[in-house]
Amino acid sequence: MTTIARDRLESLFRPRGIALVGASNKSRFSANVYRNLTRFGLGEQLHLVNRRGTVTHGQPTVTSCQEIGEPIDVAFMMVPQAGTEAALADAAAAGIRNAVVLSSGYGEAGAAGRAAQDRLVARAEELGLLLLGPNMLGFANMVDRVPLTSISGLPDSAGPVALLSQSGASSSAMLDFATLAGVGLSYMVTLGNEAMITAGHVLDFLVEDEHTRAIAIFMEAIRDPEVFRRAARRAAAADKAIVVLKAGSSELSARTAAAHTGALVGDDATVDAVFRDLGIIRVDSIEDMLVTAGTAAALGRLERPGIGVVSISGGACDIIADRAQDVGAVLPELAAETVAALADVMPDYGTTQNPLDITGAAVIDPTIFTRAVTAMSRDPSVGVVAVVNSLPWRPTGGGPSPVQVYVDAVGAGIRAAATPCVYVNQVMQPITDVTRAAMDAGGVPVAIMGLRQAVVALRNVTWWSETTRDAPGAGPVGAPASASEPEPEPTSVSASEPEPEPEPTSVSASAPITVPAPERRSGAWSEDAARRLLTDAGIPVVPAVLARSPEEAAKAAAAFGGPVALKVCSPQIEHKSDIGGVRLGVSEDDARAAYDAVAASAATVAGAVLEGVLVSPMRSGGVELLVGVVRDPQWGPILAVALGGVFVEVLKDSALSPLPVTRARARQLIGSLRAAPLLDGVRGGRPADLDALAAVVARIGDLALALGDELLALEVNPLRVDGSTVEALDAVVTWRPAGQPAT
Amino acid sequence: MTTIARDRLESLFRPRGIALVGASNKSRFSANVYRNLTRFGLGEQLHLVNRRGTVTHGQPTVTSCQEIGEPIDVAFMMVPQAGTEAALADAAAAGIRNAVVLSSGYGEAGAAGRAAQDRLVARAEELGLLLLGPNMLGFANMVDRVPLTSISGLPDSAGPVALLSQSGASSSAMLDFATLAGVGLSYMVTLGNEAMITAGHVLDFLVEDEHTRAIAIFMEAIRDPEVFRRAARRAAAADKAIVVLKAGSSELSARTAAAHTGALVGDDATVDAVFRDLGIIRVDSIEDMLVTAGTAAALGRLERPGIGVVSISGGACDIIADRAQDVGAVLPELAAETVAALADVMPDYGTTQNPLDITGAAVIDPTIFTRAVTAMSRDPSVGVVAVVNSLPWRPTGGGPSPVQVYVDAVGAGIRAAATPCVYVNQVMQPITDVTRAAMDAGGVPVAIMGLRQAVVALRNVTWWSETTRDAPGAGPVGAPASASEPEPEPTSVSASEPEPEPEPTSVSASAPITVPAPERRSGAWSEDAARRLLTDAGIPVVPAVLARSPEEAAKAAAAFGGPVALKVCSPQIEHKSDIGGVRLGVSEDDARAAYDAVAASAATVAGAVLEGVLVSPMRSGGVELLVGVVRDPQWGPILAVALGGVFVEVLKDSALSPLPVTRARARQLIGSLRAAPLLDGVRGGRPADLDALAAVVARIGDLALALGDELLALEVNPLRVDGSTVEALDAVVTWRPAGQPAT
Repeated sequence: MTTIARDRLESLFRPRGIALVGASNKSRFSANVYRNLTRFGLGEQLHLVNRRGTVTHGQPTVTSCQEIGEPIDVAFMMVPQAGTEAALADAAAAGIRNAVVLSSGYGEAGAAGRAAQDRLVARAEELGLLLLGPNMLGFANMVDRVPLTSISGLPDSAGPVALLSQSGASSSAMLDFATLAGVGLSYMVTLGNEAMITAGHVLDFLVEDEHTRAIAIFMEAIRDPEVFRRAARRAAAADKAIVVLKAGSSELSARTAAAHTGALVGDDATVDAVFRDLGIIRVDSIEDMLVTAGTAAALGRLERPGIGVVSISGGACDIIADRAQDVGAVLPELAAETVAALADVMPDYGTTQNPLDITGAAVIDPTIFTRAVTAMSRDPSVGVVAVVNSLPWRPTGGGPSPVQVYVDAVGAGIRAAATPCVYVNQVMQPITDVTRAAMDAGGVPVAIMGLRQAVVALRNVTWWSETTRDAPGAGPVGAPASASEPEPEPTSVSASEPEPEPEPTSVSASAPITVPAPERRSGAWSEDAARRLLTDAGIPVVPAVLARSPEEAAKAAAAFGGPVALKVCSPQIEHKSDIGGVRLGVSEDDARAAYDAVAASAATVAGAVLEGVLVSPMRSGGVELLVGVVRDPQWGPILAVALGGVFVEVLKDSALSPLPVTRARARQLIGSLRAAPLLDGVRGGRPADLDALAAVVARIGDLALALGDELLALEVNPLRVDGSTVEALDAVVTWRPAGQPAT
Repeated sequence: MTTIARDRLESLFRPRGIALVGASNKSRFSANVYRNLTRFGLGEQLHLVNRRGTVTHGQPTVTSCQEIGEPIDVAFMMVPQAGTEAALADAAAAGIRNAVVLSSGYGEAGAAGRAAQDRLVARAEELGLLLLGPNMLGFANMVDRVPLTSISGLPDSAGPVALLSQSGASSSAMLDFATLAGVGLSYMVTLGNEAMITAGHVLDFLVEDEHTRAIAIFMEAIRDPEVFRRAARRAAAADKAIVVLKAGSSELSARTAAAHTGALVGDDATVDAVFRDLGIIRVDSIEDMLVTAGTAAALGRLERPGIGVVSISGGACDIIADRAQDVGAVLPELAAETVAALADVMPDYGTTQNPLDITGAAVIDPTIFTRAVTAMSRDPSVGVVAVVNSLPWRPTGGGPSPVQVYVDAVGAGIRAAATPCVYVNQVMQPITDVTRAAMDAGGVPVAIMGLRQAVVALRNVTWWSETTRDAPGAGPVGAPASASEPEPEPTSVSASEPEPEPEPTSVSASAPITVPAPERRSGAWSEDAARRLLTDAGIPVVPAVLARSPEEAAKAAAAFGGPVALKVCSPQIEHKSDIGGVRLGVSEDDARAAYDAVAASAATVAGAVLEGVLVSPMRSGGVELLVGVVRDPQWGPILAVALGGVFVEVLKDSALSPLPVTRARARQLIGSLRAAPLLDGVRGGRPADLDALAAVVARIGDLALALGDELLALEVNPLRVDGSTVEALDAVVTWRPAGQPAT
C-alpha cells in the first residue's frame, strides 16, 4: 500500500500555477487544454513551455520551467516519451512537485514499456515528483474550475458526481453522456496507467470533498487493492456511493485489457465478491454507471429498499415489473392503509397495486398524480417513489410544453411526499435546458430517462443503501486499521465474532485458535494433520483413527461398529482416490485387507511418506458442501462456499467473500447459492440447521484468517450437513513453500 | 383463427376519405388528430362529425356520417362508450366499413367491460364493420402519409420500421425514442384491446408492404396465436425481422397486465419457446426494441454470425467483449490472413485481435480506420463490422465537427468493405440532423448509439439471421397450412422426419403411429397402457411384465434374473410411491410378498381399479431425463426436456419447444440445458449418445402430435440414457375427460 499525503493531491488538483510543458500549435492536445483553461478563466496562472520558445496559441512561451519564476504546482507534460525524463528534471528544478504525464508507451506497451514505466517512477521519486498518469488525458476539477485536460466538451458548471477513468479514449464519451443525462460532475480524472497515483488515492481524496456525493469509476484493474479498499470503506461511512464499471468480466475482455493497459485483471468473481463486501455498486455500461451515480448523489441513502411506482401507462408498469424481477429491485406490495388511501384517488376501473397504473383518468385530472405520489410515498415499505410520465427536451414553439401541467402535478405530490421521489421518462432522451426548466418550474428535483435505466439505478441505490447502512468506515488511507476491520490476530479471533448468536452444539466461536509453529507452516499437510487443525479450532470433524497396521484398522472398524472408510494418509498424496488410496463401505472383516491395499497405494507416488491409514465411520444422507479459503494475490484470503457434486462441477454454483466472514454473512452466502433450496430438505431429507452451518463456515474463515499470510489454501470438502449435524469429512491444508515470498 | 381480407386492411390504412366522429374543440384527442391530418395535407379527405353541428377546429361539421355524401373508408370514433354503438350504426348507414375506436371501458375493465366488448363486436359484425381497437389512439401510415392518430410528435418522413403497440399510453414515448434513435417508421399502429383486428393481422398486412423491412411490437398478450404464428412465419420468409417487447415475464407484471388490458398473459417460458421457434427477437426494453428493429431493417439478413469490432478506445473494446459474453454475441477469433492484413495497418505496440483496439495512432493517421474496417470485413468469420468512434449530435459553431475526419475515414473503409458495417457511438445520444449530416458526408449508412445497445442489437440481428435463414414461410393468414408446417397426420408422422440421420438402434422414426380408438381417448391411463403406446410407436421402454398374481411376479423376477422393481398398475393411481405402490431392488425370493404389498396399496385409493403389478428389471447408472408434452391453451402441444432429479426440482432447468420437433432441434434443446454437461459423462459415466437420445425425444414429440387435440399430457419420466442405451422407465398419458371441449 502506497500512501500519498493529502496536501500533495490538493496541490495537484487545486494548483496555484500551471505549466503546459510541450505546448505547441501543432498539437491538438495542447490546443485543447489551452482552450479549456482559458475558457475557465485561468489565463493568469498559466505558463506555456515550448522547447524553441515559439509563440504558441498566441501567447509568449518560455523554454524551461525554471524560467517561469512564479509558484507552479503542476506541470502538464505533453512531451514525447523520449523527452519525458528531461522534462521532469526541469520541472523539479523549478520547484514543481506534481506532474500530469500524457505520453503513452509505458506499462500498456509490453515488457519494454513496463521497464520504461519503472524507470519513470524511480526518476520521479528521486526528483520528489508525484505523477498522475502516464498514458492519460489529464483531469478537470469542476468545483474549483481547473480543467487541466485535453478532453473537449467539458460542461460549464459543477455537480455532485466525481468521474474517474483509467481509459482516456472513453472519457470524452463519458463526459458527453454525463451532460446528456443531466449528471453534474465535481471532478473528472483520467488515471491512465496509475504509475504512482491510483484510483484508490483519488477516491480517498474525494471522500473529503464536500461537493462530491457519489463517485463513478471506469476501470480495468485495481492497482493498489489495499488503498482502494480502505478508501471504499471510508466512502461508505461518509454516505458516498461508489459505482464501478469494471471491464474484464469476460475472458476475451481480460485479453483485450492486458493488451492495452498492461493491467493485471484479477479474477472477476473475486472482484464481484470484494465489491459486494465493500458496498460498491457494479454496473455494466457507461450509461448505467453515470445514471446510477447521479441518482445516488441526488437521493442519498434511502431509508427502505422498496420502490413505489406511479405511472399513467400500464405498459410502463408492466415493463418496470418485468425488469425489476430481472435485476432484483423490490416493488413491495402495498400496505392496507396505502391501498385505502389510493382507493380515494384512483378511478373506479383502476387497480390499486404497485406498480400503480393511474390510467388515462389522470389526463383529465392531473391531481391524481399529486395524490397518488403522496399516498405511495407514505407506504411503510416504500423508500423511494418513481413517477413515470414524459418530460420535454426540445423547445416547444413558444409557451410551456403541454406536459408541464403533469410535471407541476407531480411536483406538488413530491413536495408533500414522505420519501425521495424521481421522475422517470419512459425512454432514454437527453436532459436539456428545456427539461431542466420544466422540472424547475414544477418542483421536480430528480429525473431518470428510460424505464430500464430507472429500474437499474434505483435497484443499485437501494442495494447500496441497505448494504452500507451501518458501514463503520475506516481510517484515512495510510492510518492504522480501525478496530472494525480486524487484522489477523494469530492467538485469538474470538474478538471478531461480536454477534450474540445461539451457540450451535457443534462449534465454539470463542475457543482460541492455535497457530502451528513456524517450522510446520510449509507445503501440503496430510489429511490427519489437517483434521487436527480443524478439531483444535473447534470445527466438528468426522471421527477417525489413524491406523498404522492392519490390526489397528480392524480394531478401529470394530470400535465404530459399522462399515468404515479407509483413506491413505500422506502429505504428498493429494488425490487419494485416483491412486486407489480410498476404500468405502468396508466391513470389520475386510478392514485388514483394505488397510493393506490402501497403504500399498502410497508406494505408487514417488517420495510419498505414509503416515498411516485413516479409518472413519461411513456417513450417508444430508447434503455435502465445499468450504474453502484461497489467497487471492490482490485481495488476500477469499472464502468460497459451494454445494458439492454436480452443482459445483457442472454448474459452477459458488459464493465468494473476502474474510472475515461473520455468521450472518455466511448465512447470506449459503442462501445466495442457486442450489440453496436443497438445504431446505428436498426429497424428504431433513432441513439443514442453517445457523449451525453458518457458524461452522464462519469459523473456517476465522481459522484461515488466523493462520496468516503463509496459508495458501484451506479447504473442507466435503462438509456434510444433515439436520443440525455439521461435520468435515475431509480437509486439505496447504502452506506457501518455505522461502517463497508473500504475494 | 379469424381471417381478415387484405383489401379491408388496405381500405382502413389507406382510406379515400376519413370521418372524425365526435370532433370537438374541447377534446385534446380531437385537436391532436385534426392537427396531424392537416399537417400531412389531408384536409380535403377529412370530414368532421359533431353531434350539434358546431364549427370545430375552425371547420364546418356535419351531425351524422350520412350527411357527408362522399366515399369514406374509415370513421375515427372519439365518442364516449355510451354513444359508440349508435355512432357505429350511423357510420355503417353511411356506407363506412372500418372504424377506429378510441374509447376505453371495454375488455380492460373487468367483467362488465368484457361483456360490453362482446356486444361491441357483435354489433360491428351485424353492421359489417371492421374495428381497430377499442381502447387505443389510432394509427399513422407514414408511407402513404395518413396520420390517423391523436398521438402528437409524429416524424415528418417515413422509414423502414413498422411499430405496433397494444399500449396507447406508451406509444408516444416509443415514437419519441424512434426519432431520437434515428429509426424511421413506415407504420405506427396502436392496437388497444384487439377486439377484431389483432397484432397478427397487422403483421400479416405488413409482410406485403414493400416499405416495411422490420416490425417492432410492444405487446402484453398474443390474442390470436394462430394468426400471429402464420404471419410471423411469412415475415421470416420475407426476410423481415420481428422484434417484440412482450411484457408479462414477471409474476407481478402478469398481474398488472391483467388489471389493465384484461389480456390473457400466457406462460412466459412458453412464449419464449414459441418466439425462438418462429425466429422472433425478444427484447426487454423500448430502447432495445427500436434500435434492434432499426438495425435489422438497415442491415438485412447477415451472412455470418460473427461481429468484428474496430475501436479507437481499448476501454470500449473491453466493455464490448464483456457484454458480448453476457448476451451471447459472437466475436470470432480472426483468421491468420486477417491478422496478417491488420499487422500492416496497426502500430507496432498494438495487439491484433477482435475486438481490435487501433489505439491513439488513428488520431494522427485516420486511414488506420479505413484500412482496419476493410481488413476486418474480409475475415471469413465476420458477418458485420462495428466501428466504435464518436459522432456529433449538436451543431458545432460553424464548420464541420472535428470528428468528421474520422467519420470520413470510416466511411471510406465501409465503401471497400465485404460485409455490412455499423458505426457505434460509445454512449447513447440522439441521432439528430447534425449526426445524419455527418454520416451522409462520410458515407456512413448505419449508426447505433451506445456500446451495450450495439452489442444487444447486433446479437439480435445475427441470431435472427441464423435462426430464420432457411425459413420456409407459410401461406398468407387464412390459407391452408403449407407442407412445411405439417398438420398432425394421425396415421403416420414419418413424412415430418426428412433429415437423413443414422438410425439409432433403439428408435425407428419411420414406423407408423397408431392412434387409439376414440372410446379409449379419455382420462388417465395406467402405466401399462402408456407403456404399450410408447412401444407401439417404436419408443424403447424398459422390459416389464404385468403380473396378476404373486406367482406371476415371482416368475417374472426369475426370468429377469436379478433384482426387480414392482409397481402397482392402475389408471386411478398417479403417485404410486406415495401410497407404497412401488418396491425397488426386490429379489426373486421376495417377489411374492412384494406383489401382495404393492397390490394391497391400490385398496387405499378410492375407486382404483387394479390392473396388476408391473415387474421390471432394476436399472442403474446413466442419466435420467424428463421428456413431456403438455397442451398450452394458446399455442398447442409444447415439448419439455429436462434432466431429472435436483436439476428440474431445484433449478427448474428445462427447455421448451412447440411441436413438431425434429431430431436436430431436439439436440439443440438438450444442449441448451444448463445441466447438459452431465450427458458428456461427468464422474466417469459413459457419454450419452446424443443422436440416439435426440431421436427418442423427437419421436415422443411426434407421438404426442399424432395423438391429436384430445391428448392433455404425455410424459416419459424418467427417460434413462446410458451411453447408446435410451429407454423409458415410466410414462404417464392423460386425455381430456370425455365431453370437455378443446381449448
